[in-house]
Amino acid sequence: MTTRPRLTPAIADVRRAVRSSLADLPQNSRVLVALSGGPDSLALAAGAAFEAGRAGIRAGAVVVDHGLQEGSADVAAHAAAQALSLGLDPVLVKTVIVGTDGGPEAAARAARYAALAEAAAETGAARILLGHTLDDQAETVLLGLARGSGLGSLKGMAAASGPYLRPLLGLRRDTTERFCLDSGLTPWTDPQNSDDRFTRVRVRSTVLPLLERELGPGFAEALARTAALAREDTEALDAFAEEQLEELAEHAEAGISLPVKALAANPPALRQRIIRATVQAEFGVSLSQTHTLEVSRLVTDWRGQDALHLPGIKVIRQGSLLIFSLAGHDPAARTPTPQE
Amino acid sequence: MTTRPRLTPAIADVRRAVRSSLADLPQNSRVLVALSGGPDSLALAAGAAFEAGRAGIRAGAVVVDHGLQEGSADVAAHAAAQALSLGLDPVLVKTVIVGTDGGPEAAARAARYAALAEAAAETGAARILLGHTLDDQAETVLLGLARGSGLGSLKGMAAASGPYLRPLLGLRRDTTERFCLDSGLTPWTDPQNSDDRFTRVRVRSTVLPLLERELGPGFAEALARTAALAREDTEALDAFAEEQLEELAEHAEAGISLPVKALAANPPALRQRIIRATVQAEFGVSLSQTHTLEVSRLVTDWRGQDALHLPGIKVIRQGSLLIFSLAGHDPAARTPTPQE
Repeated sequence: MTTRPRLTPAIADVRRAVRSSLADLPQNSRVLVALSGGPDSLALAAGAAFEAGRAGIRAGAVVVDHGLQEGSADVAAHAAAQALSLGLDPVLVKTVIVGTDGGPEAAARAARYAALAEAAAETGAARILLGHTLDDQAETVLLGLARGSGLGSLKGMAAASGPYLRPLLGLRRDTTERFCLDSGLTPWTDPQNSDDRFTRVRVRSTVLPLLERELGPGFAEALARTAALAREDTEALDAFAEEQLEELAEHAEAGISLPVKALAANPPALRQRIIRATVQAEFGVSLSQTHTLEVSRLVTDWRGQDALHLPGIKVIRQGSLLIFSLAGHDPAARTPTPQE
Repeated sequence: MTTRPRLTPAIADVRRAVRSSLADLPQNSRVLVALSGGPDSLALAAGAAFEAGRAGIRAGAVVVDHGLQEGSADVAAHAAAQALSLGLDPVLVKTVIVGTDGGPEAAARAARYAALAEAAAETGAARILLGHTLDDQAETVLLGLARGSGLGSLKGMAAASGPYLRPLLGLRRDTTERFCLDSGLTPWTDPQNSDDRFTRVRVRSTVLPLLERELGPGFAEALARTAALAREDTEALDAFAEEQLEELAEHAEAGISLPVKALAANPPALRQRIIRATVQAEFGVSLSQTHTLEVSRLVTDWRGQDALHLPGIKVIRQGSLLIFSLAGHDPAARTPTPQE
């Protein structure tokens, strides 16, 4: 049964956002809303139930029970019941076992996304709708900024990425809360959202409000715009790096090589991305910024250095080439390194 | 007379930073330290006096009296006396008249940089040394972030840009304060630095300390790293845009044109930069992000739109070309616009 609340501004905003996000899907597509029962995903579920029907799309929901909190099964069952009463179909509950890899937040995220992908496969859903809002995006950018590792960590979350859609990424959290209120929906309050041992909780409760007070009420929106622009910029640079990599890289004995001269002719931002992309593509190794700069110095600051031994790989400059090989291999064993 | 204090860590850090910043200058070069009398520029002045002598470089100072505060002439005279007693020579005091263009902070900055450039010209100085620290850089990035206009406003200040060097850009402000204490130098305390009507003052006194408390003590350093990476990325993208502009742009009657197909083949980040660079180079007009996107839609979302009338310029898609002309000119007047 779909409730038919009065069309308030918050309800109109959420519906419009969902409609625009679903616009490119063909008729009879299936989508799943990832529902926690919190205000964001509950508003998304209600918006999707309303809009999907009108667009000839079939919308279901999936609730992931992380099993991390007492009563989590009840919370999941309640959310699933809400989804059913909104008219979503099918509604799945997935119970997952959260590991410890990368810390509790990362492990929960990994388990959640695996369960979502599984649910999509089981139901033939083309897209999974996630309830992230502009506030989540702003928090993500601030946390990325704290890492100080550049554009890649400022780009935040994509509005559309693979099977995932984030229809609410342009809306503030108070809009989803208002949506629930206006719709007579009672969202679940996750106690973890007020546990300030989590950095993200402190960003939400303390940091962003202060920034909005001191730097202007549009600060969260400014962070979200920054994310969108950083995403475009990083995508452009990554695409150029990929192009150059395809053009420049030559498979060498036990590895891959790049010509020094072409690397030197590129601006630093691209040179570093080409080096990183080469190592990632060939060896599946993700070079740190520091190690990338060390490799880069074999190009820009050549003083006859020895081979660089980095985690998993070895890099040596040999004549006009940088040669990358797996750690342990030694492509240069039979040719002396030229010392300039 | 150069004071010769005991070599403390703060003194060593400042001297090392100045030494490295001056390393590329030829012997007998002249430099000027821009001195306000505050701890940063006072530490820079003392560090420059010490290191310049050893590097065979002649270091003077210039004090700008903005005339904005009661007693500013006395503050300037005192700073000049400190510079002389540190062994800097020549020491100039420049009195400027601050206008109102762009607000008080921007107007003061414009007047200051004009006076610095004038002093450099008068004394034959090849470089002007500015006392900005890592804290200033972090504040600049946060203020840029609040604008939300992307990489360009995140790149902060350059360690070297034209005649300007910022030797202390990698050091925290507490190092320059400690330097002054260790050296027995008494810096001037600018009352404006505690006037929290200035956004920058609030960033310094409230925002950054909270961010360092909540997101980690390395937050300012992370902002500075972000600035450096954003600078590299934006320089690479701007360079590619310039290259493409030179390759693609054709002078048309009363304007300039870009081929739609080549624009469409570029990633959005580059397409937008090419459009912006074209308009800047041809008409001296700086397009806003919103207007750039409107122009971009003539490429990516073509539905036979009419000419776009933007501040100062007009853009029209005509067949396979985007044609930019000055507002008022109408290159298409004699040829009907193809409607597709």
